[in-house]
Amino acid sequence: MKIALLGHGVVGSGVSKIIDSGRTDELDRLEVKRILVKDESEMTDPRTTLDFNDILNDPEIGLAAECMGGLEPAHTFVKKALESGKHVVTSNKKMLAVFFEELMETAEANHVTLAYEASVGGGIPWIADLTRIRRIEMPDSFRGIFNGTTNYILSGMYSEGKEFEDMLAEAQKLGYAEQDPSDDIDGMDVRYKCSITAAAAFDKWIDPEKIPVFGIRHIRKKDLDWGRSRGLVCKLIGSGKKNEDGISVLVRPVFLKENDTFAGILQNYNAIESISATLGKAVFIGQGAGSLPTAHAVVQDMIDIVTHTHRFAAEKTRAAGTVNTEPAVWYIRTSCPEAFTAVTAEKTGEDTILTKAVSMDELLPAVRACEDPALFLAEVAE
Amino acid sequence: MKIALLGHGVVGSGVSKIIDSGRTDELDRLEVKRILVKDESEMTDPRTTLDFNDILNDPEIGLAAECMGGLEPAHTFVKKALESGKHVVTSNKKMLAVFFEELMETAEANHVTLAYEASVGGGIPWIADLTRIRRIEMPDSFRGIFNGTTNYILSGMYSEGKEFEDMLAEAQKLGYAEQDPSDDIDGMDVRYKCSITAAAAFDKWIDPEKIPVFGIRHIRKKDLDWGRSRGLVCKLIGSGKKNEDGISVLVRPVFLKENDTFAGILQNYNAIESISATLGKAVFIGQGAGSLPTAHAVVQDMIDIVTHTHRFAAEKTRAAGTVNTEPAVWYIRTSCPEAFTAVTAEKTGEDTILTKAVSMDELLPAVRACEDPALFLAEVAE
Repeated sequence: MKIALLGHGVVGSGVSKIIDSGRTDELDRLEVKRILVKDESEMTDPRTTLDFNDILNDPEIGLAAECMGGLEPAHTFVKKALESGKHVVTSNKKMLAVFFEELMETAEANHVTLAYEASVGGGIPWIADLTRIRRIEMPDSFRGIFNGTTNYILSGMYSEGKEFEDMLAEAQKLGYAEQDPSDDIDGMDVRYKCSITAAAAFDKWIDPEKIPVFGIRHIRKKDLDWGRSRGLVCKLIGSGKKNEDGISVLVRPVFLKENDTFAGILQNYNAIESISATLGKAVFIGQGAGSLPTAHAVVQDMIDIVTHTHRFAAEKTRAAGTVNTEPAVWYIRTSCPEAFTAVTAEKTGEDTILTKAVSMDELLPAVRACEDPALFLAEVAE
Repeated sequence: MKIALLGHGVVGSGVSKIIDSGRTDELDRLEVKRILVKDESEMTDPRTTLDFNDILNDPEIGLAAECMGGLEPAHTFVKKALESGKHVVTSNKKMLAVFFEELMETAEANHVTLAYEASVGGGIPWIADLTRIRRIEMPDSFRGIFNGTTNYILSGMYSEGKEFEDMLAEAQKLGYAEQDPSDDIDGMDVRYKCSITAAAAFDKWIDPEKIPVFGIRHIRKKDLDWGRSRGLVCKLIGSGKKNEDGISVLVRPVFLKENDTFAGILQNYNAIESISATLGKAVFIGQGAGSLPTAHAVVQDMIDIVTHTHRFAAEKTRAAGTVNTEPAVWYIRTSCPEAFTAVTAEKTGEDTILTKAVSMDELLPAVRACEDPALFLAEVAE
C-alpha cells in the first residue's frame, strides 16, 4: 500500500525511518510515497511536498498518517483524507480527543479505518491490547501514568529531593518537556488520553472538557516529603471506571503506597493497567513517547490496516459527562483551607489538610469557591 | 466455529465458562460442542465424552483446545487433531516445548494453525505482543518472571522473613504449588516457557534440555538476607538474547537491584519484558496462571483463528544449543567452594562465594565437578 506522511517531525521521521529500512514481510507491504512538510527547510527528501492536495488527489495513496500535532490543520486534513476514501492513522491525541465523534463517523461513512494506537501511551501496545480484551469483555476500570514528562519531574523530585522548577528545567533541557509545558504539567495531555481510552474501553465518548483535571504545576518538595513520611509516592494518574450511574474519569496526582507497581515507574516511562472480569489485572509498561516508540505504534496501525487485521470496536455513544462519585481522601495545600472546613478530617500543616472520604464531585464546588490559583490537590491511596 | 475442549480441569472449565457466558460478537462465533474428560465423575455436562474419537471423527469440529497438561496423551491427541485438519490451541507449555518442531511441521503440512498464547505467561498477552513486534523487528532480548509459584515463595521469604519450606507449604495450601512442586521450584516450568519464547522471538527452536537451569529449591533465608544487605532482591529469571555466536537462553535466580521493575513484582504475578530496536523496552505484567486468566488467553487464540487474524511467525530452525557467553558475577553457596577456586573473587561466608565475572558456559564445568546436590547459585546484577 502506498502511504503519505502528514508531518515529518519527531514521529513522522521515525515512521519513514522504520518503513524505509524495514526487513519484514509486513513492512514490505508499505511504501512511503509522499511526505507533507511545513516549509522548504524540511524538503530534504524527493518525496516531500508543501501541498496537501498532492496527497489528497493522488488515488494511489491509500493511507495517510497524521503526525503533525495541534488541532488545525491536522483535523481538516484527516477529515478530508477520510472523505476521499483513504485510511488514516494518527498519533495526535489532542486532535483525536476533541474531534473523536466527528472523525469516527466520517471514517464509518466512507468505509475506511481511523486508527489511533500511537495517540495513547506511545510505544505501549495499550489501545491494541485494550481492543483485544474487548473481544471477550469490557474492562471494569483502567488506570495509568500516561505522561512521561510529569513522571520524569515527579521521579526526580522524589529521588533527588529537587524542587519542581529545577526538574522542569532539566526536563526541558533534555527535550522531555516543551518550552510551554502547560499541556503536560496541567494534566491536559493525560485528559485527552483518558478521553480516548474511555471511548476504547467503555464505548462512551466523553468531551475532554468534562473530565476533572488537576495537574502538578503547584506541587512542592514539601508535599512529596509529607508523602514520604507516610510511605507514599506521588504520581500523576489518569483513571476510568464504570459505576452505577455512568463513567468515572479523572486526572489528578495520587499519593500511592510505596509497594504499588506504579510507584516504582521511574524516569519518563508510562504504565497503564486494565482490570477485567476474566483477565484480571494486566499492566503494560513502556516508552510513552519518543520518536521511534511512537513511530513503531503508528506503523503497527498501518500493518493492521494493510493486513486487514485491524480490530473494530463497537460503536460509541456520547456520555453527557463524568460521574465521579467514588469517595477518597484528598491532600490539599491552599491559601484558603477554610473553603474546605466542611470536609476537613485533619489539618496536617498551616496550609495543608486531609479531607474525610469524599468524592471528586462533592469536592469540586469547594475547589471552585476557594479560587486559589496555586491550590495543589492529590488523592491519597487508602 | 464448533470447538472441542480436551480436558475440563482448571483451564478447560474456565474456557467453557467464558464461551458459554460470552456476550461479544467474537464469542458468539465460538460454540463448545464436545468436552473430553478423564472419568465419569467429570461427566456433568451433556457435551462431555470419555472418547477422543468422538471429537477426532466429528467433521463439524474445526478447532480443538488442549488443556489437559502432561506429555501424553496430550501430544498424540494434538497431533491427530492437526492431521485431521483441525486447528489446535494449547495451554500446555511442557508438551509444546518438547514437541514444538514436530507439531509446527504437522500444522503447516495440514494447513491448520497451532496457537499457544496461553502456554507462556497465562493471561499476559506475551506471545501475542511478541508476535506483533515481530511484524516490525526481531527483539534483541527478553527477560521474565515466568513462574508465579516461585515468585510467591520468593516474595514471601523476602517480605515476611520466612524460610523456603514454610512458604512452599503455604503456596501448596493456597493451591499455588503442586503437591510435587519440582517443575516449579527446579525451574523446569520456566525452561519450557523460555524455549517457546525463544522460538517466537528468534525463530530458533532450542531443545529445553539444552537450556541451563538453576532453581530455588535450595535457597535459604540467609541468601536473601545477604542480598538485602546489598540492596538486592532475588527473583527466578528466565531470559534470552541474541549474541554473536548464537542464542543465549538461561534460567536462574538473579539478585536484582531494588529499583528494578521486576524486584517489585509481588505475590504470584508474572512479568515479562522485551527489548527491541524501535519499540525499546516493553514490560507486561499480569496473572501468569489461574483458571480464568489462562482460559482468557486460550479463547483469544480461538478468536484469532475464527476471525482469520492469527499472526504466523516466520519458519523456525533448530539451534544446536545455547551459547551463554555473557560474563556475570555469581553468588554460590556450596559445601565444596574449593571447586570454584579458579573463579572466586570474594569469600563472603563459610560456604558462600562471589565469583569474578564469568559466563554460565565457563561456570558449568565447575558446577558439575562440585557434585553438591544442595548447591545454590544466583546471578548478581551489576
